Amino acid sequence: MQRKNLSDEIVTDIAPITSDAYMKARYHGGRAKCLQRLIRLGMPVPVTSALCFETVRGIGEGQPVDLATIMTPFSADSLLSVRPSSENADWGGPAAILQIGINDARHAALCEIIGEDAATALYLKFIRSYALHVARLDDDDFPDAEPDAAGLKATLAAYEDVAEEPFPQDRGVQLAAVLRSMARAWGGTTARLLRQAQGAPADAGLGLIVQEMAPTPGPGERGSGEIHFIDTETGLPQVTGRYKSRAGARDVLGEADEIYLTKDPRGPSLEELEPAAFAQLIEYGTIARAKLREEMQIKFAIEKGTLAILDAVRVPRNSRASVKVAVSLAEDGIIDTKTALQRIEPAALSELLHSQVEADAPRDVVTSGIAASPGAACGKLVFTASEAQASAARGEPCVLVRRETSPEDIRGMHVAQAVLTERGGITSHAAVIGRGFGLPCIVGASEIEVNDRARTLVVGDRSLAEGDMVTIDGTAGEVLAGAAPLTKAGLDDSVATLLGWADQFRDIGVRANADTAAEAESAIGFAADGLGLCRTEHMFFEGDRLTVMREMIFADTAEDRAAVLERLLPMQRADFKQLFRIMQGRPVCVRLLDPPLHEFLPTDREGLRDLAAALNLPVSDVTERVRDLSEYNPMLGMRGVRLGITIPEIYDMQVRAILEAAISEGTMPEIMIPLVTARKEVELVQKRIDAVGAAVRAETGLEVEYSIGVMVETPRAALRAGDIAPHTAFLSFGTNDLTQMTYGLSRDDAGRFMSPYVQQGVYNEDPFHRLDMDGVGELLQIGAERGRDARPEVVLSLCGEHGGDPEAIAMCRRAGFTYVSCSPFRVPGARLAAAQIALAEVLESA
Amino acid sequence: MQRKNLSDEIVTDIAPITSDAYMKARYHGGRAKCLQRLIRLGMPVPVTSALCFETVRGIGEGQPVDLATIMTPFSADSLLSVRPSSENADWGGPAAILQIGINDARHAALCEIIGEDAATALYLKFIRSYALHVARLDDDDFPDAEPDAAGLKATLAAYEDVAEEPFPQDRGVQLAAVLRSMARAWGGTTARLLRQAQGAPADAGLGLIVQEMAPTPGPGERGSGEIHFIDTETGLPQVTGRYKSRAGARDVLGEADEIYLTKDPRGPSLEELEPAAFAQLIEYGTIARAKLREEMQIKFAIEKGTLAILDAVRVPRNSRASVKVAVSLAEDGIIDTKTALQRIEPAALSELLHSQVEADAPRDVVTSGIAASPGAACGKLVFTASEAQASAARGEPCVLVRRETSPEDIRGMHVAQAVLTERGGITSHAAVIGRGFGLPCIVGASEIEVNDRARTLVVGDRSLAEGDMVTIDGTAGEVLAGAAPLTKAGLDDSVATLLGWADQFRDIGVRANADTAAEAESAIGFAADGLGLCRTEHMFFEGDRLTVMREMIFADTAEDRAAVLERLLPMQRADFKQLFRIMQGRPVCVRLLDPPLHEFLPTDREGLRDLAAALNLPVSDVTERVRDLSEYNPMLGMRGVRLGITIPEIYDMQVRAILEAAISEGTMPEIMIPLVTARKEVELVQKRIDAVGAAVRAETGLEVEYSIGVMVETPRAALRAGDIAPHTAFLSFGTNDLTQMTYGLSRDDAGRFMSPYVQQGVYNEDPFHRLDMDGVGELLQIGAERGRDARPEVVLSLCGEHGGDPEAIAMCRRAGFTYVSCSPFRVPGARLAAAQIALAEVLESA
Repeated sequence: MQRKNLSDEIVTDIAPITSDAYMKARYHGGRAKCLQRLIRLGMPVPVTSALCFETVRGIGEGQPVDLATIMTPFSADSLLSVRPSSENADWGGPAAILQIGINDARHAALCEIIGEDAATALYLKFIRSYALHVARLDDDDFPDAEPDAAGLKATLAAYEDVAEEPFPQDRGVQLAAVLRSMARAWGGTTARLLRQAQGAPADAGLGLIVQEMAPTPGPGERGSGEIHFIDTETGLPQVTGRYKSRAGARDVLGEADEIYLTKDPRGPSLEELEPAAFAQLIEYGTIARAKLREEMQIKFAIEKGTLAILDAVRVPRNSRASVKVAVSLAEDGIIDTKTALQRIEPAALSELLHSQVEADAPRDVVTSGIAASPGAACGKLVFTASEAQASAARGEPCVLVRRETSPEDIRGMHVAQAVLTERGGITSHAAVIGRGFGLPCIVGASEIEVNDRARTLVVGDRSLAEGDMVTIDGTAGEVLAGAAPLTKAGLDDSVATLLGWADQFRDIGVRANADTAAEAESAIGFAADGLGLCRTEHMFFEGDRLTVMREMIFADTAEDRAAVLERLLPMQRADFKQLFRIMQGRPVCVRLLDPPLHEFLPTDREGLRDLAAALNLPVSDVTERVRDLSEYNPMLGMRGVRLGITIPEIYDMQVRAILEAAISEGTMPEIMIPLVTARKEVELVQKRIDAVGAAVRAETGLEVEYSIGVMVETPRAALRAGDIAPHTAFLSFGTNDLTQMTYGLSRDDAGRFMSPYVQQGVYNEDPFHRLDMDGVGELLQIGAERGRDARPEVVLSLCGEHGGDPEAIAMCRRAGFTYVSCSPFRVPGARLAAAQIALAEVLESA
Repeated sequence: MQRKNLSDEIVTDIAPITSDAYMKARYHGGRAKCLQRLIRLGMPVPVTSALCFETVRGIGEGQPVDLATIMTPFSADSLLSVRPSSENADWGGPAAILQIGINDARHAALCEIIGEDAATALYLKFIRSYALHVARLDDDDFPDAEPDAAGLKATLAAYEDVAEEPFPQDRGVQLAAVLRSMARAWGGTTARLLRQAQGAPADAGLGLIVQEMAPTPGPGERGSGEIHFIDTETGLPQVTGRYKSRAGARDVLGEADEIYLTKDPRGPSLEELEPAAFAQLIEYGTIARAKLREEMQIKFAIEKGTLAILDAVRVPRNSRASVKVAVSLAEDGIIDTKTALQRIEPAALSELLHSQVEADAPRDVVTSGIAASPGAACGKLVFTASEAQASAARGEPCVLVRRETSPEDIRGMHVAQAVLTERGGITSHAAVIGRGFGLPCIVGASEIEVNDRARTLVVGDRSLAEGDMVTIDGTAGEVLAGAAPLTKAGLDDSVATLLGWADQFRDIGVRANADTAAEAESAIGFAADGLGLCRTEHMFFEGDRLTVMREMIFADTAEDRAAVLERLLPMQRADFKQLFRIMQGRPVCVRLLDPPLHEFLPTDREGLRDLAAALNLPVSDVTERVRDLSEYNPMLGMRGVRLGITIPEIYDMQVRAILEAAISEGTMPEIMIPLVTARKEVELVQKRIDAVGAAVRAETGLEVEYSIGVMVETPRAALRAGDIAPHTAFLSFGTNDLTQMTYGLSRDDAGRFMSPYVQQGVYNEDPFHRLDMDGVGELLQIGAERGRDARPEVVLSLCGEHGGDPEAIAMCRRAGFTYVSCSPFRVPGARLAAAQIALAEVLESA
């Protein structure tokens, strides 16, 4: 046994695990450490030896295996198992190998005890397994041997033939080969990539555990099983697991009898068969939960009625159960609330807010695309927004399929169960709206061909027609044929408890982006601190407003335009009144009209004809006008504050609606100017807003307070924040557009190459999905710093899709932002992430 | 006479101009200083008094006029003139007022000398001028008076009636009023805005000059005139001017006899009439040129045969003459070459490279738009590229009119005399190509309606049809009906001389952006240091290549694509061979394919039909495919290096063509990767380029050297320059796209609001026209700094349209750039600007 001095700690290279051995997860792996804990808790763990990371690495690199030291604690004739022990169980590792030590002599002895058939089957199984996983021979080179003497002889001969040496008879030789094989597997490229994808560092080590197996079978109950104490779907207490009794004759053929753990009318159970051992197992479970501060899954064996604890790992569980377990442990005083908060992935919460396809359900995958909005839903295919509305009117759930969605599809999306588009990326129109509505959504499903006229969707040689039932799995980005079974969605009490704790610790606000009353209600339901981005354009797509909006666009003079806007005013005012009322006095930041006007116009022949009829104009006039307004790059065109400056009447109307609603609801609105690039834009719009404010005050005789701010979404606005900030109450960074412009990358067109880009590692992540810290993030920091330098009291916030991204939240917090704002459905995750970030800082500084 | 101490200098408030008086252009104005110089040179200048800026400002603000001091030098009965004297003649000033001092008594005396009619006419003229310009009365209140006693009486009565006081009889009172009126005019808003537009500071001052006019007319030759010694169109020596003899009777009626200055067979001349005075005048001209170091226009008077020099100003001249004069003065040793260089505006050179509408020609302006490419040309209207080609084939000059141009129009633009588009901004396709070809171009002429089918162009109620003759004035941005007379274009010897001097002083390279052989030849003609940007996409629009390109786009597999590219390879190779040969070993930077592939596809029904026929595919397939490739925001889509990574075969072919051409022409090409956003993009493309390089070496057995660089045109590339630079030989900043992305502003769509934006001062300038120093400029500096920090030897350059902008050149030079690159036609201006910037620095540090 060697001892080495690593970082001032004495690390045991190879040592039996005892209560006083030196075992550390970061040198010997989590499994070794856990086994030591079980031993310290007095549990009957068989003799076990641990090889530390460095030793295993050496073995993998060809250093000799120190068999003498490894073998020291084991009895001479016992069979052995080897299991991997990496620092973090999520990083994987090679599969366990059991029954090491079986050979011709042992086979002969076993024939005496369990019969020739069973003994031969056991030996054969080990040889094949060893050949395949340890000696890395080709399984095809082995005969389909019967478990008899001839079969065994043929198999041993085949082994010798292929391996060019006889099958090793020495337990030590077998063990050394197993250890070397497992050490090498850890160093392989595939394993390395897989664990790095799970967050493992490049130099992550593997420890190995050698454990004595139960002695040669004899009379009495014997068998092995696994037990845990929760329902892995709900997290509620429930003894669950399996036990395979090997007392019967079928053992060695791998067909052990699986019996119930607890008493069950349907058949025998361990609880009845071995009540003492079972009771002890339950007790060990309780001890493990309390002392390991986690719900554990315990692997155990029973030999002649005696319980042995072989291994224990964290119970795998779904997101809902994770939350329940963490909250229960905290409520039971086993862990504190901070620890509970840190145990839940923020992304897990968003999973809980949506139905999912049941994990074990069969999946008939038709095609896949970008998983743009999580959750799953079933419905009949429809190809137009109006058919979606008709379907909803009939009470039939539907899935809306479009090549791409446009604002005209909003009403259809509202009533659909899910949305599927052929084109677009993670922040395309469909994706943004889908997330806003909490609607499962797949975009950029580029394999499909949507034929609007025939109302079919073709993928390869498969064709689906209107009315066909499909399931959209927006979490996996997969379209399934038929109605897959779904889990139930919803936040339960334990989530509410957890988020309550989160709010005690977090020190950055979390608001929601919400445009409609429904979304605002979601925001309140998820306890958002307010609305950080209320886009007003969606209000103009509803009902008759679109027609009025189009009349406004077609107005020839400023007077005509003002007259039409006069008719839009009460509608807008009503929208804002409703929003303010729902938000119960929490702050609401309203963005003035942003999209180019042509987005409100139809492009297809039918739509143009309808519009011409509505406006009483020749179709040719309308067509010409629509063509005139079209743009090469609408994202970079006549939109945002550019509209506010060239057609100021629109903003005038919106501001009046906001202020009149604010007076009536007694709130202080925040008014945000979009797409700013220069200070002067802010000054001009501010002047007009203040003029409307003065007019409203004069007309009503009432005071109205409001603040004016700037949406920083062009790189120039970020760079010029020092110039702009003195003229604005807040700077809200719109990271969607900022990402588009920093990358020169349209979110609607990115779908076409984002997949190969991420696959080839050109970008680590889709920058619309995770905030690009190096480019966009730097602009945010530059903007924040310059803005605050120029005006220390300026309020900083982030209101793009990245508002729910923990990394972005952390950056905003460091930069002194007041809040982040994200889709309502991401608010819970953001609240949790914010708490974790604050806690991590406390922990670091401690 | 007061003296004040201003900035340690003794400034004379009011003083006669004498050779030893204290006169400074910055206190008394340029005219006062010039008059003093004439006096010092011994010229016979009449008694003159100068009022300094501060005195005039005081008068304008209501302080009393110190008449006693002003009048001191003048004889009691002389008439006086007042002229403005601002620091810089370009800043303007009120018009001169003459004959101050005329009154009833003087009128009576004059009647005796020159007759009643003439004397009355003179007096009447002064009263009316005084009433209008000094007393600011309404001209309509005065009768149309005959020059007789009744008329005079009626006029004086009208004056008294309107002014509510009699017409002032005192010379001093008149003078004081004139001075006050001129002082106030200077402070008016219009005058202030006009001079600020000429670069005057907000507090620019006005001096005033009071000069004694010739004594009361008597017998003998008397008259006045102006003379200068160059042709203001060519700058060549030529005595030019006019002389009005007032010896005859028609004088006072304002109908003096204009006679020739020099001997002329057509009539009498001053040279013959007063040979001594004329000879002296010529001598004074020579002295003025040598001593004032400038070609002056001299105002003179002759009284009884005696010459008086009244005033002298710099001869107004056109750009061509400016260059000629500066070069002549330097060649004559009067000024040094540095001074000559500093006297020419770089923009003036680009004017010389194009024909212009003659200054005095009548202009029938049909409409106006954005002046996108300077120069003027006449031709018959055509509405399609193919009609332009047909017209050219017939030898008829034509002007191509399009709603907007697309790459398909290139061939038409090549043969057209000028281009006019309804849409687009200063860097739209038409504008960029127009400047590249040196083709006069107006874009964004939004008043016109182009009807392609009817082949008409309608503006208001005016309609032009195919075949109608028009003139495009791309310098003024005006469309003129008919063929306007044009000046001849071309660089002459003096420009070449001047630019030769410039090249001695400049310390930053000037390359040209050139895509075609013709442009490369222009670049060589303008002595560019090389090509800084050779866009390869234009090569694919020529001849049959477009069809092959389209086949490539429609290829279903990588193999099919490679096969088509195989056919494009020899064409590309030939292109590059020709370019390298033309560039005679100067560096050539080739940008790999940049635009989205759909730009190569037709969009109209006819084009789709033709393409389907060419590819032997159903029209519906082709239409579908074209629709699939279309993008929402092509500027932010699948283009640049994104093509290089997703369809690498295209770049492979281009690189092979470049390298094979380079071997054959013995040059070392620079290969530039467009639209980079991340280091990994560069690494991937670099790897493939090097693989092609290795293959070419292996195949030919010859060495080929090349360098690989990055076009920095996304904000992210600028921010990440430190990460990118270690992997690249050069960073070339593409400011067109960088401006688009920094502002979130498409150059093609900006036309719609850029005018109101600049008019309202939201932006000081169109950022596509002048580099935005605050935003885009900062990104350039960040990128340059980080790039150089990471790799000190990295070559920095600018290759956007701003490469010809002096301010941008200055910034690049400060940031240590190796070169700028601009349209060939802007190269001369850029060479001059670069020299001026280097000289200014030397001057500053001196």
